[in-house]
Amino acid sequence: MTQTKIFHYFDHNATTPVCKEVLEALPELATAWGNPSSIHWGGRMPKNILRDARKAVADAVGVSPLEIVFTSGGSEANNTVLKGLFEYYQTAPFLSPEQSRRTHYMCSSVEHPSIIKAMDHLKSLGARVDFIPVNRQGQIDLKFFEEHLSEETALVSVMFANNETGTLFPIKEMAKMAHAKGALFHTDAVQAFGKLPLNLKELEVDFASFSGHKFYSVKGSGFLYSRKGSNFSSLINGGGQERHRRGGTENTLGIGALGVVAKRVNLIADKAKELTVLRDYMEKRILTEISEVTITAGESARLPNTSSLVLNGVDGETMLMALDIKGYAVSTGAACSSGNPEPSPVLLAMGLSRAEAQNSLRVSLGWDTTLEQVDGFIENLKTVVNRLRSLRSDEGDSTHV
Amino acid sequence: MTQTKIFHYFDHNATTPVCKEVLEALPELATAWGNPSSIHWGGRMPKNILRDARKAVADAVGVSPLEIVFTSGGSEANNTVLKGLFEYYQTAPFLSPEQSRRTHYMCSSVEHPSIIKAMDHLKSLGARVDFIPVNRQGQIDLKFFEEHLSEETALVSVMFANNETGTLFPIKEMAKMAHAKGALFHTDAVQAFGKLPLNLKELEVDFASFSGHKFYSVKGSGFLYSRKGSNFSSLINGGGQERHRRGGTENTLGIGALGVVAKRVNLIADKAKELTVLRDYMEKRILTEISEVTITAGESARLPNTSSLVLNGVDGETMLMALDIKGYAVSTGAACSSGNPEPSPVLLAMGLSRAEAQNSLRVSLGWDTTLEQVDGFIENLKTVVNRLRSLRSDEGDSTHV
Ligand SMILES: Cc1ncc(COP(=O)(O)O)c(C=O)c1O
Ligand SMILES: Cc1ncc(COP(=O)(O)O)c(C=O)c1O
Repeated sequence: MTQTKIFHYFDHNATTPVCKEVLEALPELATAWGNPSSIHWGGRMPKNILRDARKAVADAVGVSPLEIVFTSGGSEANNTVLKGLFEYYQTAPFLSPEQSRRTHYMCSSVEHPSIIKAMDHLKSLGARVDFIPVNRQGQIDLKFFEEHLSEETALVSVMFANNETGTLFPIKEMAKMAHAKGALFHTDAVQAFGKLPLNLKELEVDFASFSGHKFYSVKGSGFLYSRKGSNFSSLINGGGQERHRRGGTENTLGIGALGVVAKRVNLIADKAKELTVLRDYMEKRILTEISEVTITAGESARLPNTSSLVLNGVDGETMLMALDIKGYAVSTGAACSSGNPEPSPVLLAMGLSRAEAQNSLRVSLGWDTTLEQVDGFIENLKTVVNRLRSLRSDEGDSTHV
Repeated sequence: MTQTKIFHYFDHNATTPVCKEVLEALPELATAWGNPSSIHWGGRMPKNILRDARKAVADAVGVSPLEIVFTSGGSEANNTVLKGLFEYYQTAPFLSPEQSRRTHYMCSSVEHPSIIKAMDHLKSLGARVDFIPVNRQGQIDLKFFEEHLSEETALVSVMFANNETGTLFPIKEMAKMAHAKGALFHTDAVQAFGKLPLNLKELEVDFASFSGHKFYSVKGSGFLYSRKGSNFSSLINGGGQERHRRGGTENTLGIGALGVVAKRVNLIADKAKELTVLRDYMEKRILTEISEVTITAGESARLPNTSSLVLNGVDGETMLMALDIKGYAVSTGAACSSGNPEPSPVLLAMGLSRAEAQNSLRVSLGWDTTLEQVDGFIENLKTVVNRLRSLRSDEGDSTHV
C-alpha cells in the first residue's frame, strides 16, 4: 500500500505555486502561438494578450502601460536598470557635462544577488559603488546614504522589501533624497508584488523590478517599470520589441499569465491582513513554546508573510532537512544560494554573527496557508529543534561555534 | 450564421505553432512550480525538469549538458555572447597581453537585428566592428573575411541560416579560419534548429544560439551553447543559476518544453527531405505560372522550408494583406521589423534594389504544411498578384519606384 505524503509549503519567498487562474489560462495562451510582431492574423491574438497584460500590470502598480517593459524575470529587470543606465551614460551621444559626471552608484548591503553582483560588475567596469549599511533591525543607514549621495550619483537602488527577513525600506523618502541630488532611484519590488498594495506613482521612483513567480504566476516572466522619460541602454538588443527597450520575441505565455495574476491585486490588501494575523500568531507561539529563539528584525516594519528565526544552537540546514522529511518546506536563506553552505550574506550584513546566521530559518507564508498548517508546522518545529538540541548536548558544546 | 474561417500558416520562420507534445506537457510542467534551487522537496521536480531538458537539448545538438546555458530566447543568447565576451575582455583580472589586444568583432551584414544592434552597441563602447558583405546569392565574402580577420579579432559571429532567405553559411570553414587567428566563433543557429540536423561538435564553433519558438515550442525560452572553456561575463548576474553563467530563477515551463521538442530531433532529417520536395514544387509552380518572379538566392544552399520571392511591381505589404484576407499568412521580411515600412535591410545588404526588396515576400513552410495548402496558396498568390498588377497598370507605372 502506498501512502500519499502531504506537503506543506512555507517557502513562498522562494517561489509560489502557480494559481488556478493561471493554470486555467495556459492552454489558451499556448494556443495563441503567433508572433505578436506579425501583421497578418497570426499576430492578432498574441498582440491582444500583450496589450491586455500590459494594461493589467500597469493598473496593478498604478502606472501607465507605456511605462511597462516585460522581461524574463526580476533578475533581468534588475540587471537592465543597473547596466542599462551605466551603459547609457557611457554611450549616449548628447550628454550634458552634468550627466557625464554621474559615475557613482549606491544600493543597500542587503540587496538580492542580482543587484549586488551587477553592482560589482559595474565596479569592475569603472563605476564607483557604495553599499549602504543596514542594522540588526533591518533599518538602513540614512545618515550614510545622505553623506555619500552626491551630484555624481547616477542611481540609487534599494529594495522595497527584503527577501530573507521581510523588512521594508523607506523608499519614498530615499527616492526624494536621491532626486534632490539629481540621481535616479530604482526599487527591486520583487518581494513586495502580491504581498502589499503598491502604487509606484505615489512612491515617485524612476524604476522598479517585478517577477511573476513570486506572485502565483509562472517562472521566466517579470517586468520593469521605467518612468516616462527615464532612459537606459537595452540589456537585450533586438528587433525593436517593447518599444526598443527589450529585444526578443515576447514570452506571450508568461506575459499573459502575468496579466492574469495582475488582475488579482484587489485581493492583496485583505490577504495581507489575514497573513499578518497568521504570521503574528505563529511567531508568538514559537517565541513562547521554543526556548532561545529570536525573530530577526522582529520589531521592524515587515512583509506580512515573512519570519526569519534564529534558533540558538541548531544548524539551519539540518533543521530544513529534518522538516523536509516531515513534509514542511522552509528555507535557510535566499533560495538561490541554498545548496551553498555559506551563511546568508544578508543576515551577516545586518550584523548577525556567523553562528546566528547559520542557526537561521526563513518561514514565508502564502495565500493558501491555513491555521492548521501553521499549528502543524509549529509542532514539528518544536520536535525537530528539541531533538537537534538534545543531540547537540549529548555531543557536548563543541559543535556550537 | 457564422462561418469559421480556415487559416493557412506560411510564416514558420517568424514563429511556429506550439506542438501537441508541448501542449500536453504544459499542465505537468506548470504544476512542478517549485524553485529548482530549493533543497527541500519543492525543488526536486523542477530540478529534474532542468536536468532532463539540458540533457535532451545537449543530445539534440551533439554537445555536453554542461555546455548548455538556458536563456529567455535567441536574442538573449546572441546578446550574451557578444556583450559577454566584450565585457569579459574588459574586466577579467588575468588577461594575457595577447587577449587584451582583442578588440575587433566581425559578423555578416545579414545577421538578425539582435546581432547587428548588439554589434553597434559594442562599437559605441569602443570595439572595432566589421560587417562581412554578402552577395545577391547570399554568399559571404570570404576574401573580405580573411583580409579583416586578425590577431586582434575577439569574436566572429555568422548565422547558420538566414531568417529571410534561408541561405546557409560555411560555418565550419569560417570557424576554422577564425581559430587560426586565435579568435572565437559564434553562430546564430536560431533558424537552423529543427530545420536541419545539427552537430555543434563537428562544426567546431565556440558558441551557438537557439530559440524554442522557432521549433514548435513556446516563446521566451532558448539556449546558448558555450563550448567548455569559453569564458564570458554574464549578461544577467544573479543567484548563481546556470553555473553562474545566467542569473534568474529558471523558466522551468519554457525549459521543460524545450526538452520536449529537443527529443523530436530524430524527425528532422526526414522532415527536411519532405519540405525540400514541397518547397521545390512550390517554387517551380510559382516560377512557371506567375510572370516576372525571381527566387532570391534561389541557386544557393538554403533551408529546406524557405522561399524569398521578388514579384516585380507588386508591393510586398499589399500582397501580405491581400493574402491575409484570403487566410494565408506570409511575411515581407523579418517578423520583428514588420509594421516597419522600410524595406528589409537583409535584402538590401544582399544587393537587391529598394524596389526589389519592397516587392519581396517570404514564404516559410512547416512540418504540418500539406500539398493541398501549397496548391491553395499558389492559386491565391496568382489571383492577388494578377489583381495588384492590373490595378497598377491601370494607374500607370508611377507607383513603381
Ligand atoms: C536568425 C535569428 N536570430 C535570432 C532570433 C531571435 O530569437 P528570439 O525571438 O527567440 O529572441 C531570430 C528570430 O526572431 C532569428 O530569426
Ligand atoms: C528581492 C528579489 N529580487 C530579485 C529576485 C530575482 O527574481 P527572478 O527570480 O525572477 O529572477 C528575487 C528572487 O529570486 C528576489 O527575492
